[in-house]
Amino acid sequence: MKNDKNIGCNELNLKQTASYLRKHNNYIILTHASPDGDTLGSAYALYYALNEIGKTACVLCPDVIPKKYDYFARKTDHVSMENSTVIAVDIATEALLGGLKDEFAGKINLCIDHHISNTRYAENLYLDASAAATAQSMYELIEQMKVNINDITAKALYTGLATDTGCFKYANVTEKTHLIAAELYKFNIDAAEINRLMFDTKSKKLIKLEQMVLSKSEFHFDDRCFLLPVTAEMQEETGCSGTELEGIAVISRSVEGVMVGITMKQTDMEEFKVSLRTYPPLDASAICNKLGGGGHVAAAGATVKGTYEEVKARVLKAVGEALEEVDAGSDSVR
Amino acid sequence: MKNDKNIGCNELNLKQTASYLRKHNNYIILTHASPDGDTLGSAYALYYALNEIGKTACVLCPDVIPKKYDYFARKTDHVSMENSTVIAVDIATEALLGGLKDEFAGKINLCIDHHISNTRYAENLYLDASAAATAQSMYELIEQMKVNINDITAKALYTGLATDTGCFKYANVTEKTHLIAAELYKFNIDAAEINRLMFDTKSKKLIKLEQMVLSKSEFHFDDRCFLLPVTAEMQEETGCSGTELEGIAVISRSVEGVMVGITMKQTDMEEFKVSLRTYPPLDASAICNKLGGGGHVAAAGATVKGTYEEVKARVLKAVGEALEEVDAGSDSVR
Repeated sequence: MKNDKNIGCNELNLKQTASYLRKHNNYIILTHASPDGDTLGSAYALYYALNEIGKTACVLCPDVIPKKYDYFARKTDHVSMENSTVIAVDIATEALLGGLKDEFAGKINLCIDHHISNTRYAENLYLDASAAATAQSMYELIEQMKVNINDITAKALYTGLATDTGCFKYANVTEKTHLIAAELYKFNIDAAEINRLMFDTKSKKLIKLEQMVLSKSEFHFDDRCFLLPVTAEMQEETGCSGTELEGIAVISRSVEGVMVGITMKQTDMEEFKVSLRTYPPLDASAICNKLGGGGHVAAAGATVKGTYEEVKARVLKAVGEALEEVDAGSDSVR
Repeated sequence: MKNDKNIGCNELNLKQTASYLRKHNNYIILTHASPDGDTLGSAYALYYALNEIGKTACVLCPDVIPKKYDYFARKTDHVSMENSTVIAVDIATEALLGGLKDEFAGKINLCIDHHISNTRYAENLYLDASAAATAQSMYELIEQMKVNINDITAKALYTGLATDTGCFKYANVTEKTHLIAAELYKFNIDAAEINRLMFDTKSKKLIKLEQMVLSKSEFHFDDRCFLLPVTAEMQEETGCSGTELEGIAVISRSVEGVMVGITMKQTDMEEFKVSLRTYPPLDASAICNKLGGGGHVAAAGATVKGTYEEVKARVLKAVGEALEEVDAGSDSVR
């Protein structure tokens, strides 16, 4: 069944996708679960663009949309499934539909995405893996459709572009990303205020949690490894959970001289979600493979069972071996 | 004397400045004290551009250039004062020449700057106060001069652009800033690595200091005010001082719901440098005026004498009055 669907996935180019969007109507636009700025910004930009040309549309998010996106994420009208066109935005796999999976799995007419890992679950797919954000593709689609961009559409697009790139900081940014940002500055978007909301605003409880985590942090291997424990107790005491904890892994590799940042987030009595962040020549994914996980060269993860001390020992052993290999490599160069 | 000099300051436009730079030779390029990414990036970009057209040039910085700028800030040859052309880059007042003031004050032939507060101390001035960074103007100057940009020149320019805008986050960013960033991405600049060095790398001692500061932080006025004490003891114990402490004020206003962030940095036995960060409708500069200081609407400061408790009481009184005014204002609106 899955294979059949994969074979049936029809890849569209930019022009074909724009014409598809012009042709259909009654759009149900889906975002992924635990929504971020890119899935929401892209979905709402599409919603406003479709409205602009008289199409009926709604945005459905599997989870509650955080209040900080209120400046563009308004409540939309209901569109019934009958005769609808279902669009998945920034959703790499159907699993990411979360609570909307039962209703919409197998019924996605078009997916617009930038994840190279997209599982081709939709009837039609527009995938530009070179785009820094789905919002980058969405801007190009709206331009290709020759639809007028409003201030609120520009705000939504800018939000997607900025959030998926760490405000133009990461390696996914290209010349095109900055060119589109420049175009969006022609609108009344108040980018500085968007960036303050997205990047410089932490909840009181997260500040508290970060303090707790840092107070229990440990340096290993001549300060080349920084380990941050996020215990169940810390999560309970502060009430921080889920996506709120994502920033901790960033802290783990922000210390000067650190080559490996380890975050150990307790997910059960004797289970930890280990997140690794590395700098070259270390390979986070290779280290996490040893722990039964995987990921990318610079960021990877694994779920490891055991007590805190047991898991820590296993992770440090794997990291230590990788560091030894690096040391041996640099020895042979000398 | 000062007035004479002010009257004598000759303001040049972009074209005139480019032709000035083409015409002269033996350049001594000065950066400001406590150098940042913009003064260094702009100065070195100019240095490489002048080299490219066969001019003799050197860069002089009043302080040691931090190692993190090594990727573009190389040691330059010596240029003697005789027959030299002295250029001040990103330097708003001669006081910012620091240790180079005695040697160069009154001898600046051309200042290239973007600070509206520039005191017009130089013989010639190219000032574009609408530029997000001096590096933005420097890019335009090099383009106007029709000088080839190399990878290292592009790296220097990108560094200035990114650091003065918080990586394209702040209100000084314009369409033009992003357009120039897009142009610089055509070169081999590894922007992600530059951004990691500039924004995501903290020293171990700063992490330690931040922990200490947060552990002594206080919320006031229904969590609308967040106060961070940076005592002499904390500075001594961690060895953090000067520009390293600049990021603390940013933390003070990063908490959700906080309208005023206060940082109290101890500078003497009974003296504190108070930094205020506010959000509208609060006016940081009005509050700091009450404390004998001043600044901008969103960021201001004052030096207040007294014990920690005395200074804290004075600052909180001034902040409390401002919050009361805001509350009264919103009452009348209801």
